[in-house]
Amino acid sequence: MVKKVYGVGVGVGDKKLLTLKALEVLKKVDKIFVPISKEGKKSIAHEIIKDYVNDKEVEELLFPMIKDKEKLKKYWETALEKVLKEDGEVAIITIGDPTLYSTFSYVWKLLKENGVEVEIINGISSIFASAAALNMPLVEGDEKLCILPQGKDLEKYIDEFDTIIIMKTKNLKEKLAIIRDRDDYIIGLVKRATFEDEKVAIGRLDEIDFDEFNDYLSLAVIKRVKR
Amino acid sequence: MVKKVYGVGVGVGDKKLLTLKALEVLKKVDKIFVPISKEGKKSIAHEIIKDYVNDKEVEELLFPMIKDKEKLKKYWETALEKVLKEDGEVAIITIGDPTLYSTFSYVWKLLKENGVEVEIINGISSIFASAAALNMPLVEGDEKLCILPQGKDLEKYIDEFDTIIIMKTKNLKEKLAIIRDRDDYIIGLVKRATFEDEKVAIGRLDEIDFDEFNDYLSLAVIKRVKR
Repeated sequence: MVKKVYGVGVGVGDKKLLTLKALEVLKKVDKIFVPISKEGKKSIAHEIIKDYVNDKEVEELLFPMIKDKEKLKKYWETALEKVLKEDGEVAIITIGDPTLYSTFSYVWKLLKENGVEVEIINGISSIFASAAALNMPLVEGDEKLCILPQGKDLEKYIDEFDTIIIMKTKNLKEKLAIIRDRDDYIIGLVKRATFEDEKVAIGRLDEIDFDEFNDYLSLAVIKRVKR
Repeated sequence: MVKKVYGVGVGVGDKKLLTLKALEVLKKVDKIFVPISKEGKKSIAHEIIKDYVNDKEVEELLFPMIKDKEKLKKYWETALEKVLKEDGEVAIITIGDPTLYSTFSYVWKLLKENGVEVEIINGISSIFASAAALNMPLVEGDEKLCILPQGKDLEKYIDEFDTIIIMKTKNLKEKLAIIRDRDDYIIGLVKRATFEDEKVAIGRLDEIDFDEFNDYLSLAVIKRVKR
């Protein structure tokens, strides 16, 4: 049975945002599992690391982009089986950080339930890479921040948090519609932070061309304007 | 005048959590500015990087741990002056990530106002390093997360967010008192994540010895227990 599993965050698009520790772990493990969202589709996480570890044995784990948890469970269990039957130490890589909305978290839980030692190697998250791309801090001092996947409950929190991050949606425009007429917020949009085709926009809702940001790797940072 | 300023996140205690990019930038700049909180006190950020760049010129920037913004402003402006009068490219380092509650953010703003090019080099944040130390994800799926500095408004959000992070306080016990009698939450406490003297505790409020976590580099992760 597998001896140890490293859940390795490989950061965002810029290959140099890999940590020294992630590199060390990827070089020493016996095998690297890379997530794909569709058979035949390239793994973004694998693209980030493959120049560093091109001699390493790699196996794909299929995690489709569906929401039905019952169906997903089958994929997590298939992934678990593949990982469990390894002999030595392996890594499962994930974009961003493994602790924030990572597909790895489900397999992580199953591994723990099976008594497997798991060590997390943190990675640079898109929330920070996006703030860097926008050239503005997310929060300072005693400001409050929240992350609302798919913009859930935005109407409830828009007047309460200094910074709101909306991620994990392709439909940012629709999710942000509720703040269309407000001038006390500035919106920063980032698509594929640090990738070669990164796109950034800052402004009010009606100033931004949202069509360019219809991408699952886009996120919005909504910041209250202090007066 | 200074040509370019890199705001470099050096991550948390584990020196290997530095990114390849941060290392590259620190090696190439003409000078590294390191934050200290008190004259004569060691810079935590400097401790993290100094084995990598021990031949590099270093200058301290004093950012005392006080709350009075008017008084702080003087320190930011002194720091700004020091940085502006450099000739080449310099780095200002910060623990964690420069975009999340970083002292650097104030100098960042002043630099931008002075027309100086600033590039942010992201680092591993303590929020992720703490989740790794707790061996649990912060959020998965469509869970909502918020960060409340000093536990501000915890009573308001305790029933609304799946995960709440409380940081930037020495008095975690007092801040968490409001959830003392609840059994629908689990609390993870981490002091100095990835440092040699890291401490971790998970449990209900009355099960945890808070005395061990009276440290500014401690944080609490409050997670709703799903039933």
